[in-house]
Amino acid sequence: MNIVVVNGPNLNLLGRREPHLYGHTTLADVEARLLEVGRELGASVRCVQHNGEGQLVDAIQALAGAADGAVVNAGAYTHTSIALRDALVGVGVPFVEVHVTNVHAREDFRHRSMLASAALGVLCGFGTYGYELALRGLVATLRARAQSGSPSTAG
Amino acid sequence: MNIVVVNGPNLNLLGRREPHLYGHTTLADVEARLLEVGRELGASVRCVQHNGEGQLVDAIQALAGAADGAVVNAGAYTHTSIALRDALVGVGVPFVEVHVTNVHAREDFRHRSMLASAALGVLCGFGTYGYELALRGLVATLRARAQSGSPSTAG
Amino acid sequence: MNIVVVNGPNLNLLGRREPHLYGHTTLADVEARLLEVGRELGASVRCVQHNGEGQLVDAIQALAGAADGAVVNAGAYTHTSIALRDALVGVGVPFVEVHVTNVHAREDFRHRSMLASAALGVLCGFGTYGYELALRGLVATLRARAQSGSPSTAG
Amino acid sequence: MNIVVVNGPNLNLLGRREPHLYGHTTLADVEARLLEVGRELGASVRCVQHNGEGQLVDAIQALAGAADGAVVNAGAYTHTSIALRDALVGVGVPFVEVHVTNVHAREDFRHRSMLASAALGVLCGFGTYGYELALRGLVATLRARAQSGSPSTAG
Amino acid sequence: MNIVVVNGPNLNLLGRREPHLYGHTTLADVEARLLEVGRELGASVRCVQHNGEGQLVDAIQALAGAADGAVVNAGAYTHTSIALRDALVGVGVPFVEVHVTNVHAREDFRHRSMLASAALGVLCGFGTYGYELALRGLVATLRARAQSGSPSTAG
Amino acid sequence: MNIVVVNGPNLNLLGRREPHLYGHTTLADVEARLLEVGRELGASVRCVQHNGEGQLVDAIQALAGAADGAVVNAGAYTHTSIALRDALVGVGVPFVEVHVTNVHAREDFRHRSMLASAALGVLCGFGTYGYELALRGLVATLRARAQSGSPSTAG
Amino acid sequence: MNIVVVNGPNLNLLGRREPHLYGHTTLADVEARLLEVGRELGASVRCVQHNGEGQLVDAIQALAGAADGAVVNAGAYTHTSIALRDALVGVGVPFVEVHVTNVHAREDFRHRSMLASAALGVLCGFGTYGYELALRGLVATLRARAQSGSPSTAG
Amino acid sequence: MNIVVVNGPNLNLLGRREPHLYGHTTLADVEARLLEVGRELGASVRCVQHNGEGQLVDAIQALAGAADGAVVNAGAYTHTSIALRDALVGVGVPFVEVHVTNVHAREDFRHRSMLASAALGVLCGFGTYGYELALRGLVATLRARAQSGSPSTAG
Amino acid sequence: MNIVVVNGPNLNLLGRREPHLYGHTTLADVEARLLEVGRELGASVRCVQHNGEGQLVDAIQALAGAADGAVVNAGAYTHTSIALRDALVGVGVPFVEVHVTNVHAREDFRHRSMLASAALGVLCGFGTYGYELALRGLVATLRARAQSGSPSTAG
Amino acid sequence: MNIVVVNGPNLNLLGRREPHLYGHTTLADVEARLLEVGRELGASVRCVQHNGEGQLVDAIQALAGAADGAVVNAGAYTHTSIALRDALVGVGVPFVEVHVTNVHAREDFRHRSMLASAALGVLCGFGTYGYELALRGLVATLRARAQSGSPSTAG
Amino acid sequence: MNIVVVNGPNLNLLGRREPHLYGHTTLADVEARLLEVGRELGASVRCVQHNGEGQLVDAIQALAGAADGAVVNAGAYTHTSIALRDALVGVGVPFVEVHVTNVHAREDFRHRSMLASAALGVLCGFGTYGYELALRGLVATLRARAQSGSPSTAG
Amino acid sequence: MNIVVVNGPNLNLLGRREPHLYGHTTLADVEARLLEVGRELGASVRCVQHNGEGQLVDAIQALAGAADGAVVNAGAYTHTSIALRDALVGVGVPFVEVHVTNVHAREDFRHRSMLASAALGVLCGFGTYGYELALRGLVATLRARAQSGSPSTAG
Repeated sequence: MNIVVVNGPNLNLLGRREPHLYGHTTLADVEARLLEVGRELGASVRCVQHNGEGQLVDAIQALAGAADGAVVNAGAYTHTSIALRDALVGVGVPFVEVHVTNVHAREDFRHRSMLASAALGVLCGFGTYGYELALRGLVATLRARAQSGSPSTAG
Repeated sequence: MNIVVVNGPNLNLLGRREPHLYGHTTLADVEARLLEVGRELGASVRCVQHNGEGQLVDAIQALAGAADGAVVNAGAYTHTSIALRDALVGVGVPFVEVHVTNVHAREDFRHRSMLASAALGVLCGFGTYGYELALRGLVATLRARAQSGSPSTAG
Repeated sequence: MNIVVVNGPNLNLLGRREPHLYGHTTLADVEARLLEVGRELGASVRCVQHNGEGQLVDAIQALAGAADGAVVNAGAYTHTSIALRDALVGVGVPFVEVHVTNVHAREDFRHRSMLASAALGVLCGFGTYGYELALRGLVATLRARAQSGSPSTAG
Repeated sequence: MNIVVVNGPNLNLLGRREPHLYGHTTLADVEARLLEVGRELGASVRCVQHNGEGQLVDAIQALAGAADGAVVNAGAYTHTSIALRDALVGVGVPFVEVHVTNVHAREDFRHRSMLASAALGVLCGFGTYGYELALRGLVATLRARAQSGSPSTAG
Repeated sequence: MNIVVVNGPNLNLLGRREPHLYGHTTLADVEARLLEVGRELGASVRCVQHNGEGQLVDAIQALAGAADGAVVNAGAYTHTSIALRDALVGVGVPFVEVHVTNVHAREDFRHRSMLASAALGVLCGFGTYGYELALRGLVATLRARAQSGSPSTAG
Repeated sequence: MNIVVVNGPNLNLLGRREPHLYGHTTLADVEARLLEVGRELGASVRCVQHNGEGQLVDAIQALAGAADGAVVNAGAYTHTSIALRDALVGVGVPFVEVHVTNVHAREDFRHRSMLASAALGVLCGFGTYGYELALRGLVATLRARAQSGSPSTAG
Repeated sequence: MNIVVVNGPNLNLLGRREPHLYGHTTLADVEARLLEVGRELGASVRCVQHNGEGQLVDAIQALAGAADGAVVNAGAYTHTSIALRDALVGVGVPFVEVHVTNVHAREDFRHRSMLASAALGVLCGFGTYGYELALRGLVATLRARAQSGSPSTAG
Repeated sequence: MNIVVVNGPNLNLLGRREPHLYGHTTLADVEARLLEVGRELGASVRCVQHNGEGQLVDAIQALAGAADGAVVNAGAYTHTSIALRDALVGVGVPFVEVHVTNVHAREDFRHRSMLASAALGVLCGFGTYGYELALRGLVATLRARAQSGSPSTAG
Repeated sequence: MNIVVVNGPNLNLLGRREPHLYGHTTLADVEARLLEVGRELGASVRCVQHNGEGQLVDAIQALAGAADGAVVNAGAYTHTSIALRDALVGVGVPFVEVHVTNVHAREDFRHRSMLASAALGVLCGFGTYGYELALRGLVATLRARAQSGSPSTAG
Repeated sequence: MNIVVVNGPNLNLLGRREPHLYGHTTLADVEARLLEVGRELGASVRCVQHNGEGQLVDAIQALAGAADGAVVNAGAYTHTSIALRDALVGVGVPFVEVHVTNVHAREDFRHRSMLASAALGVLCGFGTYGYELALRGLVATLRARAQSGSPSTAG
Repeated sequence: MNIVVVNGPNLNLLGRREPHLYGHTTLADVEARLLEVGRELGASVRCVQHNGEGQLVDAIQALAGAADGAVVNAGAYTHTSIALRDALVGVGVPFVEVHVTNVHAREDFRHRSMLASAALGVLCGFGTYGYELALRGLVATLRARAQSGSPSTAG
Repeated sequence: MNIVVVNGPNLNLLGRREPHLYGHTTLADVEARLLEVGRELGASVRCVQHNGEGQLVDAIQALAGAADGAVVNAGAYTHTSIALRDALVGVGVPFVEVHVTNVHAREDFRHRSMLASAALGVLCGFGTYGYELALRGLVATLRARAQSGSPSTAG
C-alpha cells in the first residue's frame, strides 16, 4: 500500500512558525515519524511539500496510479482552492484532510474547507500527532474497504 | 487516566440505523472495542449514551472531578446545543469531538458545530473506527500536555 | 395497519393554550377522534405526547417494527430538532407532518421545518381537523404505495 | 357551497410530466374525482387551469361573489407571484394551497410560497390525492366557521 | 404632449379591493379625473390596464413613438418584473412610478421595485390622488427638460 | 392649516452642490415658491433647515401643537436616523418624505429610508419641483382626511 | 403574590462553573436571598432548576393558575428554545428574563434570545445580583399594573 | 432533426431597442439566418416569440413530440421564471440558453438564471451571432449523443 | 459616589410621547425619583439630557474624573452610535444601559445596541421604573467591585 | 489574426479525469482540432496550459502585442482568481470564457466567475466542442468589430 | 496651497483616551506638528475638531472656496455618516481619510467607511504619525495633478 | 535597517497596464525611487516582484532573519490569499500594506483584504507615490518602537 503525505504552504515552517500554535516539531521530524508508522502498518509512505498551488496540483496529479491514498494538509489553500479539490477528485485517490491546529477555534476564514466534502475523513487539533492519526485512519479504512469490497463509508 | 465516552441521540441505533451511512457495527461493539483500546493505552474507559439533551448535560456535569478527558459524539445536538457546550466548558474536561460519518459531505445543517471551537480536537468520516482514533488522540495529547506542563495545543 | 400519532411540546395544552390560535378542542378530544377515524379506515391508531426532545426521540425509536406510519406534530421542535429528524429517518417509518395553525402566517422562526423534507406530506392551518386529514392522507398514500409496489411519490 | 379549483402553469401536463414526481393521474382524472367528492360533500365544484399569470389573476377576480372557497395549486407561480396573492386577498375568498409533490424535498426555490401566509391551510406531498384532502379540509373549515360564526382559525 | 397611464394587475379592482387600504375611488373615476387634469395641463391622456405581464409588455412597446411620457402603476409586478423594466427602457419613454398605498409601510416584498431606478420619479402613499400628482410631476418635468434642452434631472 | 418644511444636512447647498444631480435652484428659491404655493392652497408654510441631527430633532419636537403637517427632506439622515423617526412619530404630525433626486437610481446606501414607513407619502426624483408636489399631496390628503373623518389612507 | 424563579441548564453549577464569568455565589445562595427579598416585598417565592428543556416546559406549564409572575434564566436554551417561549406564552404568566453575565459581551450565539420579545422585561450583566433586580422589577411592575388596571407597559 | 427557437419578452424589439447593447440586427434577420444555418446543418428550424410568460409556457409545451431540441432566449423571464423551467423540464426537450449581451457584465438581477442548470449548454455576449453558435452547438451535441447512445454530457 | 444619568434624543418627551409605549411619567418625575433613590443609596445623582449626538459625546467626555458610574439611555442613538460608545469607553466610566420599553418586542432596528457589549449591565422593559433598577444595580455592582478589589463581573 | 487558447489547472487531465463529466477527448485532441478550425477561419491558433495561477498570469501577460484574442478556460481559478482577471484586463486582449461542463448544473462554488464580466462572451456545457464554438464566436466577433470600427457589443 | 485638517468625535481625547490604542501624543501636539510640516511643504495648514456630526458638516461646507484639500479623520462617524460624505463631495475638495489605529484589526463595525470611496487616498495604523503621512500624500498628489493638468489618479 | 518591498501579480505591468488607473510610472522607476528614499532614511531597501502566490510565499519566508520590515503590495492576492497572510505572520516581520489605486472606489471584491488586520499600517490611493509614503511610515514606526521599547501601536 502506497501512501503520499502532501503538505501545503508554510508547513515547511513547522516548528519555527508561531510555536504557541504549531508546536516545536519540524516537518522533517513529522515526516520521519510517518515513515516509521508506515513501516509499522506495512505501508510505504512518501512525503511532499510545496508553497505553490500549481505545484500542489502537479504533485496531486502525479498520484494517479502511484498512490493508494493520501494524507493532505493543504494549509491556507484548504479554505479557498477549488483547483486542489478538482485535482484530488480528478485522480480519484482517497484522502484524509488533516490540520495541526483546531481550525474551528481560529479565524472565521479557516472554518470553511473546499476539500472536506470530498475527503474520506477529516481531523484537526491534535498538533503534529494528527498526521499519525490521519495515517492510521487512512490505512485502516482502505484495508476495511478492500476487505468488504464496498468502496466507501461515504456520508 | 479516566476517560468517558459520551454518545448522544440516536447513536444507540448504530449498526441498525441507515447502515449505508453508519455501517453495521453496533454501539455495544464500539464500546467494547474502546475498553480494549483503553486497556492497551493504560486508560480506564467508561461509556454513556442518552437521547435527551438534559440527560447529556447531567452526564457531562458528572465528569467534574471524575474524568481526565472525554470523547464526545453529541450526534444531532452537535449542531445546535449551547447547553452541551456550556456543560463541557463548565466542567473544564478536555474533549475530542467525533462523528461516524463525514458531516461535511452531508446536509448543510450538519456543517456547523457548537462544540468544535471548545474541543481539543475534532475528527469525522472514519466510521466507527473514528472513536478509536479519537481515544488515541485524546490520550496522547493529555500525556504530552502532562509531560510538558503546558496546558494546551490550543488554536 | 398500525399508525402512531406523535405530539410534541405544549400540545398537551391544546384547548387551553391561546384558544384564538389553537381553538377549544383538547388533545384528548383529538386523540379520541383519531381512534374513531382509524377504525373507519381499518387502521389501528395509538397516540403519544411528550414535552422533552429526548423522550420524543425515544418514542420515535420505538416505532421501528411497530408502526407502518406516523402523524407527527413536533410543535416547537419542528423548527430546530435535527435529533427528531434523525430518529424518524433512522427508523424509516413514513410520516406526515401536521400543524394546527398556519405556521406560514406566524413568526419567521416557525417558517422553517427540520422535518418537512423527510416527510411523506405536510399540512397546516386546518385547526385540529388537520390531524384527521393527515391520518386520511397517510393511510391513503401507504395503501396506494402497497398496491403499486412503488415506495414513494417522493419529491 | 360553491368551490373553485384553480390550477396554474404546467398542471395541464399532470400524468404526462415527470411521472416519477407527479404520478400518472391526469388533470382530467383529478377534476372528475373532485366533482365526485364535491357531490359527496354537498358542494358544487368548478375547475379552471391556466398557464398565464394574468389569466389566473382574471380567473381569481371572477371568484368574487361566485365562490365560497377555493383550492389553489398555483404551480411555479406559487413561489414568486405577488399578483396572485393580491387577487386572492382582493376578492377575499378563503383558499387552501395545495401541491402534488412535497415541495420541501425539492429545490430551494420551491420552499418559499408567496401565497401561504394568506391561505386558510396549506398541504403538499400527497400526490394528486392532496386535492381531495384540500377540498375536504376547505369544506370542513368553512362549515365549522359558518357554525361558530367566528371567521377564522387564523395564525 | 401625449401621456399614457398604465395600470397593472388587480388595479381594475380599485374601489372594491381592500378599501381600508385602497379607498373607494374606482379605476374609472381615477381615469376620468386624469383626463380632466390632462386637459388642464394641455396634455392628451390615454389609460390602459392589464392583469397580464405580457399584455403590459405589449402595451408599453406600443408607446414607442406614440407617447411622450407615462405614469406607471405596475401593481404587484413592480416588485419582480424585469420584463416591464426592459420594455420601458427599450422604448425609451420617460415614466413616473406611482403606488396608491405607502408600500414602505407594508410587507417586505413590496419594498423592492424593479422599475424605480429606471424611472424619472417615484411616489406612493397619496391614495388615488397620487396619480394626479404623478401626472403633474411628469408633465412639469418633461416641459422643464424641453425648455432647458437637458435630458434629465437624473440621479 | 399650518405646514412646516424641514430640510436636513447639506440641503442649504442646493443650487451649488453637484448641480448635475440637484439642479440650479437654491433652497431660498424653493422656500419662496413653497410659500407661494401655500398661499394658493390656503396653507401657512414655514421652512427650517439644519445640518445637525439633534437640531432637527429639536425642530421636529417644536412641531407638536404648532403644525398640522410637515414636508420632510432629511437628506443623508433619511437613511440612518432613528432619532428623527422617533421625533416625528413622537409628535404625531403627519408628514411627506421628499427627495430632490431619484434615490433609487443612486448608491445602495440611499435605498433604505428609516422614515418612509412612518410617512403619509413618499416621493423622489422630480428635482426641486418635488417639494411643491409634496406640499400639494400633503394638503390634499389632510383635507380629505378632515372631510371623511377617517384618520389615514394608511398602508 | 406568588413568584416562581426558573433556572435552566448548568445554572446548578453557579459558583463552581467559570467563576471569572459567573462569580462565586452558588444557586442555593441565590435562591435563599430571593426568598428573603420576596418576604421583604410581600411575595411568596418558589425556585426550580432543570437541565432538560422538556423538564423546563413541564415546570412552566405548572405555573398556570399557580404563579402571578416568573423570573426566568433559561441559560443556554434562551438562545434557541421555541418550546420554552411557547410554554411561557401558553400559560400567560408575565416573566422577566435574566442573565448573570452580560450576554452582549460574549459569543455571537448568545446575542439572540427566543424569549425576550415575549418578556415583560429583560436584564443581564449584574452578576447574581441581577436575580434580585429582576424580582424587584417584576413585583413592582405587576403591582403597578394591578393598580392601574392596564395590563402592560408593552413595547 | 427539428429545432425550435424560442424568444421571450422584448426580443421582438431586437435591432430597435437599445442598439448600443443589442446591435442593429432585427429578430426577422436573426430568424432568417437561423433557417439558413439550419438548412446547412440538415435541421428544420422553426421560430416563435412571445412577450407573455403563459404564452411561452404554451409554446414550450407544444414542443413535446414535435422538436428534438430548442434554442431558448427567455429574455427577462430567464432570471425569475420557474414556470418556463418546469415547462422545459416537463416536455424533456434538450435546450441551449442564449443571450445577446453578456449578462454577467450587466445588472446583478441578470446574473441569476432559473433555466441554466436545466440546460444542455449556455452562451451569452456574442450579439445576435450567438443564436447561430447556439444552434450549431445544439445540433452537434444532439448528433454526438445520438451516435454514442449516451444521453448527456451532463454536469 | 457620583452617578450621572444620561438621557438621549426624545427622552425629554417622556410622559407626552406615545404614552401607550412610554407611560405618563415625565423625565422631570424620573429625575426627581432618581435623586431620591440616590440619597437612599448614599450616592450623588446628576442628570443630563440632549437630543444631539455631539452634545451627548461632550456630556460623556465631561464624566472623566467627575463620575464613578453612569446610567445611560441613549435612545435612538443606542442602535447606531459608535461615537457614544467610543466616548464611554474613552472616559472609562462603568455604565448601565437602560430602555423604558422592551426593545426586543419592537422593530428590528431596535434590537441591535452599539453600547451593550461595553456596558456593565443592560436592562429594558420595566417602564420608567427601569431607571431606578439600573441605578440600584449600578451602585450595588460598583460597591461589590470596590469591596472585592476585582474590577469587573465581565462577560 | 492571432488567437491564443489558454487552459488552466487540471485541464491537462481532459479525457482521463471524471469522463462522465468531461468526456474522453484529451487536451491534445482539442488543441489539434482548434488548430484545424483556426486554419479554416484564417486564424493562427496557439495553445498553452498551466496548473499554476502565477504561470497563467505570466502566459496572459505574454499576450500583449502578440494576440488579437484569447479563448480562456481558467478551470478552477475561474471562480476565485482576481489575478487572472487583472492580467486579462491589463493586457487588453478580448477573450471568450469557456467551460467544458455546464457549471450552472454543478456545485454552488462553480456558479460565480471572476472573469465573466470582463469577457467578450461566455459559454459552457457543450463538452470539448465548446472550444470550437468559442473560437468561432471570438473570430466572428473580432471581424465584425474590425469591420464596423465599433470596439464592442459590450454589456 | 491651503489645507484643512478635520478631526471628528473623541479625537480631542487623543493622548488621554485608551493610550494602549492611541498613544500619548495629544491633538494639540499633532496639530502643532502638522503646521510645521505644512510650512516645510509650503502649505498653509488650519485645524478643526468637533464632536457633533452637524458641526462637522458645517465645517466641511466652510471649506468651499477656502481650501485646496483636506485631511479628514471623522472618527466614529467614518463608519456611518452619509452626511459627511455628502458635504465632502458637495464642496468638491479632495481629501485624504486617516485613522490613528489600524481599523482593520479592530471591531467589525470599524471596517466599513462611508467616506473612503470618495477619498483621494486612505491610510491607517501609523499612530499619530499618520496625519503627517496623509498631509505629505495629499500635498504631493495635488501638486502632481496641478502639474499634469489631470484631475485625479481615481480608482 | 533592512526593508524589503514585495510586489505581487501584474505589478510588473505598472506604467503599461490601465494607465488611467495606475499612471505611467513603471515598477523599475518605483523601485529606483524607493532605493533613493531608503538611502535618505538610512535604510537598505531590496525589491522583489512575483506573479505566483507560491513564489511570493517563498519570498516572504526568506525575510525571516533578513528583514526588519516589509512594504507589501500583494495586488490581486490581497483579497483572497490566506497563504500570504500566514507567511507574513509566520516570519513575524512587520509590514505595511500598500495599493496604488483607491481600492475602496473600485469593485466590491477589492474591498476585502486578507492581510490588513495583520499589517502595521495600510494605505491606498496615492498612486505610485504611496510606496514612498509606506516606506516612510514603516521606517518611522519601526524607529519609534525601537526607541520606546514597546512592540506595537496595535489596534
